[in-house]
Amino acid sequence: MNAAHLLPEIHLRVVPPALIAALQTRFGAQCTVAQAVREQHGRDESSFRAPPPSAVVFADSTQDVADAVQLASQYAVPVIAYGAGSSLEGQLLAVQGGISIDLSRMNQVLSIDAEDLTVTVQPGITRKQLNEAIKDTGLFFPIDPGADASIGGMSATRASGTNAVRYGTMRENVLALEVVTASGQVIRTGTRAKKSSAGYDLTRLMVGSEGTLGIMTEITVRLYPLPEAVSAAVCSFPSIEAAVRTTIQTIQLGVPIARIELIDRHAVRMVNAHSKLQLREEPMLLMEFHGTPSGVKEQTETVQEIAGEFGGQAFEWASTPEERSRLWAARHNAYFAAVQSRPGCRAISTDTCVPISRLADCLLESVAEAEASGIPYSLVGHVGDGNFHFGYLLDPDNPEERITAETLNHNLVARALSLDGTCSGEHGVGLHKMGFLLDETGAGAVDMMRAIKRALDPKNILNPGKIFAF
Amino acid sequence: MNAAHLLPEIHLRVVPPALIAALQTRFGAQCTVAQAVREQHGRDESSFRAPPPSAVVFADSTQDVADAVQLASQYAVPVIAYGAGSSLEGQLLAVQGGISIDLSRMNQVLSIDAEDLTVTVQPGITRKQLNEAIKDTGLFFPIDPGADASIGGMSATRASGTNAVRYGTMRENVLALEVVTASGQVIRTGTRAKKSSAGYDLTRLMVGSEGTLGIMTEITVRLYPLPEAVSAAVCSFPSIEAAVRTTIQTIQLGVPIARIELIDRHAVRMVNAHSKLQLREEPMLLMEFHGTPSGVKEQTETVQEIAGEFGGQAFEWASTPEERSRLWAARHNAYFAAVQSRPGCRAISTDTCVPISRLADCLLESVAEAEASGIPYSLVGHVGDGNFHFGYLLDPDNPEERITAETLNHNLVARALSLDGTCSGEHGVGLHKMGFLLDETGAGAVDMMRAIKRALDPKNILNPGKIFAF
Repeated sequence: MNAAHLLPEIHLRVVPPALIAALQTRFGAQCTVAQAVREQHGRDESSFRAPPPSAVVFADSTQDVADAVQLASQYAVPVIAYGAGSSLEGQLLAVQGGISIDLSRMNQVLSIDAEDLTVTVQPGITRKQLNEAIKDTGLFFPIDPGADASIGGMSATRASGTNAVRYGTMRENVLALEVVTASGQVIRTGTRAKKSSAGYDLTRLMVGSEGTLGIMTEITVRLYPLPEAVSAAVCSFPSIEAAVRTTIQTIQLGVPIARIELIDRHAVRMVNAHSKLQLREEPMLLMEFHGTPSGVKEQTETVQEIAGEFGGQAFEWASTPEERSRLWAARHNAYFAAVQSRPGCRAISTDTCVPISRLADCLLESVAEAEASGIPYSLVGHVGDGNFHFGYLLDPDNPEERITAETLNHNLVARALSLDGTCSGEHGVGLHKMGFLLDETGAGAVDMMRAIKRALDPKNILNPGKIFAF
Repeated sequence: MNAAHLLPEIHLRVVPPALIAALQTRFGAQCTVAQAVREQHGRDESSFRAPPPSAVVFADSTQDVADAVQLASQYAVPVIAYGAGSSLEGQLLAVQGGISIDLSRMNQVLSIDAEDLTVTVQPGITRKQLNEAIKDTGLFFPIDPGADASIGGMSATRASGTNAVRYGTMRENVLALEVVTASGQVIRTGTRAKKSSAGYDLTRLMVGSEGTLGIMTEITVRLYPLPEAVSAAVCSFPSIEAAVRTTIQTIQLGVPIARIELIDRHAVRMVNAHSKLQLREEPMLLMEFHGTPSGVKEQTETVQEIAGEFGGQAFEWASTPEERSRLWAARHNAYFAAVQSRPGCRAISTDTCVPISRLADCLLESVAEAEASGIPYSLVGHVGDGNFHFGYLLDPDNPEERITAETLNHNLVARALSLDGTCSGEHGVGLHKMGFLLDETGAGAVDMMRAIKRALDPKNILNPGKIFAF
């Protein structure tokens, strides 16, 4: 493996001055070519770099998005939708040049339908803003990828996170969309009905398409009643294997646990340093239980019993909302805690997901290999779903380390695929996993994706160069 | 509205004798042109009729399917996949001629992965056969459209039924597929991982595509642990409105009820006659609760209290598996009970689904209109999902009655769409709802479906003439 292979070649397409002029005429101060703004919109949380987009349009409405896309289409220039900038696989990079459409101002709640457990929002609203807006309804939006991502970005990446083991991912929770197509047309997919057999599932085709098939301008998602009782617990284990076996048995017994997160001893150490906690520096599970008071009691008793069989310590409870928030904030900051543990480092984050019965095999081999490599790393995982993330912490000025980290990632993906798993549980393909996607699905399925892309975006202007070569 | 508008014009494409000869050479006795077999494969449970396919190929393997499709592709002749023949919207009719591929012999369980709560099957296995095959695992496959449909057909129609309120539909429960494409290529979509962000969601694009984008040859679905405790109850109400309000409140409170089915007094009468039961001839809810013993107790207490507020009678319990089976068999036979209640009649079944808060409005207006029309009907509904079915029982020799029934259906769909609902909760579009689909999604979304169809099936050979005009 060679570091030069890590990014596809960059072929910038021409952005004619006439397009910039047309955008400035149409959008005035909403359109900028300022270097700093362009730079900010040309990167994400990945370790990749590419030249920035030629202009950024701050959209205030669906019509703005449609008009910007129509103008770009006239000149066959790429457009990349930008939400919160938190993607991890290079999804936002302008690898073929083009313009960025910033959706962060489109952050309104359009309709709260509490009786139907749905809400319709604009794409730029973040998950925290959304939960703040609905806090008086007795409902909540559970999907939680850690970062305060935008709902548009989460939909486009088919995100999930800690609560997915109970509440599903964006795949299960997006009901309906308004989408601007590659020609600048505005279409609607789905309705607020809970289920439907009315034609092709365009909603789910758009969810996870990473901005390559359309730009979402309205999103209807499912909400859930706030559970009557919530309790969170931490449990330390003598080994990663013991923690993983506890997880597997919990899931196989059908316990409706809301969160079950693995944090390895490296990650605990980094989180302790970053969040000023004193968690025991051993592999641990962070868990949360939702339900009626008696239901939560039943669940916790079952899981405590399982954990005990595998040598787990007594549960440490976080029962007040404040304690729980502190614990989950620490978990959510694990990525930043890891990056800060090695000054100047960049993280390469893995994202494999395997069937639960294969989790121990996949994880333990990968841990052994990471330990042997000598590269610093942290390991956290949404293990109830079979999904986990190594963060390899590499010195960006040391190409050897990047090669080591990429080799670990490559071996991990190969292992996950051989165990019936996927290369990406929740981060998407972006630039980084294009080769892995081909390994996972085979050329036939990628050809089908390509045929769909060609049909819906014949000029290849919607976030080109992502997911597959085209 | 005119009865002649109910079916699109039939334009039979030529099936050249050379194709039949090639199929007979390749398939021998697996290929038949016998009139009776062709007739059987050219109809479904809908009230439509079209000329039968020119030949039927009984596939034993994926290779058989691929070879049959490749031959058909060479001659640009339509192919229609056939499972159990239980579709309701004309999905199986050879409206453009062609050949039928019967998948009922491909009914093997390929892999039971009980630890992962998944099973991989061939498409011809029926849901009852599947549950029989896994009965020793402690798991079950909950999706239950009433008819003993094939898993392939259920996937292709995005079916659901009585358990969907708790366990979701085929959309949520199909994890991965093997698919034969329009060119006869075999591809795979998805993996056994519970979640994935790896590229376009081809699995969900295929689910609900009604055989127009590919033919599924292997299907991996999710299983669930058999609940520790199950109890079923019947509750009569003074009015449909009271039953519906009870349902709405149950759902809005987040009670994880497994089944909550409305049966109106007409349907109760027909079911009593057909299944020799003595249910009170009033609107009723049939309910089932799954969980731990204490969880089921909590759920039932909550729902009993709600029902009491709306004038519901005391629950009548069916606690033994035999009593429960008898009750649900009666519910599942409601369609046949209705058809038998009027000798010689045909049923037109509606399938709208609305957000739960709109259910009372949608249902009550539609009941009033149906009563006023004078046409016999029954009404049953998966009301927990906002989905319900009128069965209008019409004399096929009386065109006036058909027009009356179609007008009722038309008005019902318009009402559901105006309430943010869908024209089809679970039966699919087929031939019958092509106009409704356009009303529901608008031309832009249907154009997008058409573009995908054109890209994946340029010769338009996969079940042509269904879902949208092409």
